[in-house]
Amino acid sequence: MLVLVTYDVNTETASGKTRLRKVAKQCVNYGTRVQNSVFECVVDPGQCLLLKSILTDIIDENVDSLRFYYLGKQRNAKVEQIGVCKGVNVDEPLIF
Amino acid sequence: MLVLVTYDVNTETASGKTRLRKVAKQCVNYGTRVQNSVFECVVDPGQCLLLKSILTDIIDENVDSLRFYYLGKQRNAKVEQIGVCKGVNVDEPLIF
Repeated sequence: MLVLVTYDVNTETASGKTRLRKVAKQCVNYGTRVQNSVFECVVDPGQCLLLKSILTDIIDENVDSLRFYYLGKQRNAKVEQIGVCKGVNVDEPLIF
Repeated sequence: MLVLVTYDVNTETASGKTRLRKVAKQCVNYGTRVQNSVFECVVDPGQCLLLKSILTDIIDENVDSLRFYYLGKQRNAKVEQIGVCKGVNVDEPLIF
């Protein structure tokens, strides 16, 4: 199934910047980065649970946010892109 | 229908910062901000076309990105939130 993962990590502190990098590095293992804080992941239910668990362990739930959108079968997802469409290197600075 | 709008606006320049503010201000007219660069909009097809047109006119397609996810009927959308869940004031600094 296609799962869209979006996140906001508060980067006001050094630990926040570390969390942001960690979240992105984990998401890269499960999907394609389509925007700085948006990943499209094709995963089975087990992988999805695992990803959710990993990310939940990384973030600070008091200041950060994760959202998971379950988009069903990948071929049925209706997505439209306007503007630049390029992968973002997870090792690049992630703070904008 | 529920449309998820996600965007990346390149804020390396002053004009980029202005575009980012403009995109957010327009999205606020159509939906709920669930993360810094993620809006959930409940719109009819006409409103959706209008929003898309407005945002496309604002962004610089060479460096910015818009994505629209068509999630169908709102009540059928499967969304999960972990961590902080609060509206973000569109007048607050939007650069993280």
